[in-house]
Amino acid sequence: MVIAKLIGNVWATRKYDSLNGLKFMLVEILDGSDKNKKIVAVDTIGAGRGDRVIITQGSSARAILEEESHSKIPVDAVIVGIIDEDCDF
Amino acid sequence: MVIAKLIGNVWATRKYDSLNGLKFMLVEILDGSDKNKKIVAVDTIGAGRGDRVIITQGSSARAILEEESHSKIPVDAVIVGIIDEDCDF
Amino acid sequence: MVIAKLIGNVWATRKYDSLNGLKFMLVEILDGSDKNKKIVAVDTIGAGRGDRVIITQGSSARAILEEESHSKIPVDAVIVGIIDEDCDF
Amino acid sequence: MVIAKLIGNVWATRKYDSLNGLKFMLVEILDGSDKNKKIVAVDTIGAGRGDRVIITQGSSARAILEEESHSKIPVDAVIVGIIDEDCDF
Amino acid sequence: MVIAKLIGNVWATRKYDSLNGLKFMLVEILDGSDKNKKIVAVDTIGAGRGDRVIITQGSSARAILEEESHSKIPVDAVIVGIIDEDCDF
Repeated sequence: MVIAKLIGNVWATRKYDSLNGLKFMLVEILDGSDKNKKIVAVDTIGAGRGDRVIITQGSSARAILEEESHSKIPVDAVIVGIIDEDCDF
Repeated sequence: MVIAKLIGNVWATRKYDSLNGLKFMLVEILDGSDKNKKIVAVDTIGAGRGDRVIITQGSSARAILEEESHSKIPVDAVIVGIIDEDCDF
Repeated sequence: MVIAKLIGNVWATRKYDSLNGLKFMLVEILDGSDKNKKIVAVDTIGAGRGDRVIITQGSSARAILEEESHSKIPVDAVIVGIIDEDCDF
Repeated sequence: MVIAKLIGNVWATRKYDSLNGLKFMLVEILDGSDKNKKIVAVDTIGAGRGDRVIITQGSSARAILEEESHSKIPVDAVIVGIIDEDCDF
Repeated sequence: MVIAKLIGNVWATRKYDSLNGLKFMLVEILDGSDKNKKIVAVDTIGAGRGDRVIITQGSSARAILEEESHSKIPVDAVIVGIIDEDCDF
């Protein structure tokens, strides 16, 4: 999983049907060749602006959203954890 | 999901059978080490030239296309949302 | 999907059994941080040297090959379309 | 699989439910364009700080965790081996 | 698939159970932004040191190993072919 900083919400009024109701967040990758890259991830745990979050990508991200849904959900990045503030790295 | 700008249509008269009828779009990644990279994504929501769009990649992209199809569809990138114009980042 | 230029055939006499009969092509990525990177893709549509082709990667690539096969096929990149010559980008 | 160095634990009190009980480790990629990138991987074999470890990513990582679980587990990187100390490269 | 050069064996006495018996090889990517990156791949065809090999990654790699196994195998890269010596590129 990659580590990213939560920047804020992403608003997309027009989107694929099964995405309605999901919270889209803009997050910034903190490390590697994609350092500072901004991607969109779905929040599942109530993360807030400024939090350092753990992002799971690929089919592993989609699978948890589809567990409670009858339709396919085209999502490839999900926020799955907030790194504790006193975790120093 | 990555953020990209929709550039225009991609025309490919010769293509894999199950791709017929899909709308192929050229989009340009807006961030990260692949900034300015152009990729091809299938449009599912009626996006237009110049829109900033959200792209879902990998098996999550293919899954929604195959929901309404009996054959496998070799697609790994789909436009799933248009970012609102007043969303400022 | 990424856009690549078809360079030529790749010959690999020794290979995994279920790959026999597939056409392996060398293609060169045309854009992004992997610009000029050469990868190997399986041709499904009769593309020729010099063609600009559309490459689908990951499980989406493998799925179409396995539709007509009883064994698993370890392929992660497939040529799925040829971009029309008068498509100017 | 990529090779990484295990740096230490990652603490995330708030996380997706099915992640409880898993050991999250910070590892540093040792090679390639993502050299020195830190990612989070789940430890399955009791690796320790300083070990050079083998990381499996994507759906292959998630699959082994879900074998013993009834719910989906949003993980995309797992430590699956420790490289022997006298393995010189 | 990417093209890599086989460097030698990787020894990992401590590893995930279902990996026992597999041959782990160190290979070096020959092209692209990850040129010279060393990764670990499972050999399925008896490749030797110095061979230029074709590497399949992701779920496509895992699938062929699991065909003959009852447990999940956390592998995301497999050597599936050896490029003929007289193949000049």
